Amino acid sequence: MQLHRDDVVDGAIAILDQYGLADLTMRRLAGALRVQPGALYWHFPNKQALLGAVADRILAPMERPVAAGDWSGALTELAHRLRDCLLTYRDGAELVSATYASRLTTSTGRERLAGTVVRAGIPREQAELAAYTLLYYVLGHTVDEQSRMQMDSAGALTDPPAESTGPLAESPDPTARFDFGLQLFTAGIRHRLGSDVR
Amino acid sequence: MQLHRDDVVDGAIAILDQYGLADLTMRRLAGALRVQPGALYWHFPNKQALLGAVADRILAPMERPVAAGDWSGALTELAHRLRDCLLTYRDGAELVSATYASRLTTSTGRERLAGTVVRAGIPREQAELAAYTLLYYVLGHTVDEQSRMQMDSAGALTDPPAESTGPLAESPDPTARFDFGLQLFTAGIRHRLGSDVR
Repeated sequence: MQLHRDDVVDGAIAILDQYGLADLTMRRLAGALRVQPGALYWHFPNKQALLGAVADRILAPMERPVAAGDWSGALTELAHRLRDCLLTYRDGAELVSATYASRLTTSTGRERLAGTVVRAGIPREQAELAAYTLLYYVLGHTVDEQSRMQMDSAGALTDPPAESTGPLAESPDPTARFDFGLQLFTAGIRHRLGSDVR
Repeated sequence: MQLHRDDVVDGAIAILDQYGLADLTMRRLAGALRVQPGALYWHFPNKQALLGAVADRILAPMERPVAAGDWSGALTELAHRLRDCLLTYRDGAELVSATYASRLTTSTGRERLAGTVVRAGIPREQAELAAYTLLYYVLGHTVDEQSRMQMDSAGALTDPPAESTGPLAESPDPTARFDFGLQLFTAGIRHRLGSDVR
């Protein structure tokens, strides 16, 4: 039976969800697919390229249309969708965060963010920078949030007692915390532009 | 000769800088220090705790005084210092990003950010959230920046030609990009507060 590119990505996603990013090796993937490692390299020249394709799969919902009409609503919707994509897969945030540097993902998520900032009236060059700012914020937030969720389910969190107000005390709700940062970001764009913003 | 806690952290930092985070294992560290693994566990109950101590070492400069007098200057200075700390060690951004979730670092970096936001006139509870926003932005930015630097020195970057304007095109200067995000952040705080800000 022929091994298709999508089968390889399916297999990689299955290993990711069951064992995590650290166990996603070309050798293990070949074993799970019952093929020789060479069969994988026919589709992907190296692991970096495979991870790029896995990131594409994780980020696929970023291509769907946005419901919100105004730019700040659309940005908020896209940022939440990005966070949801990353949280859907075990180690999803870490994988995309580490893989993004290779720029091997074909996801147009960042460009959609930039295009939405342009709609706010920001020049293209600055909108590109703003899209990076938002992307980095979402990645940083979600890597931490997902790590804590996964540590928690593994019983590895050593949280201080609820009455603690020391350095380890947590703000209770990750979604509220995430939203606060998004509001700062959109407020920053508004303030930077002053009356130029629609 | 007695093995001190600081010797273990020194050894971990040396392995990190020479081989990277993936090769920083308790077994390898014990070998490098010429002790049995048990000698490490006398100082650190598990690898998570060791990584917390390594993060403390990486983040140590965050405790030093700030030169800037106004809150936005101080925030910018602290954010740059955090980025510099992470870039100083190989995989430093990834290590702190992954370790931060365990909340085992004793670094007061995030609290210093929050205290600086309070000086802007923001209520403590919101200032804590703003400090998380800034921390996540710096971590997300620096993980990507450092990954690209390290891929570049390993010859693993496959950048498109300079004339490309497609999805892989890079904004040229990571520091300028970083500063743009910081400006959006401080503008967001100013805008959110309106005339309440000093």
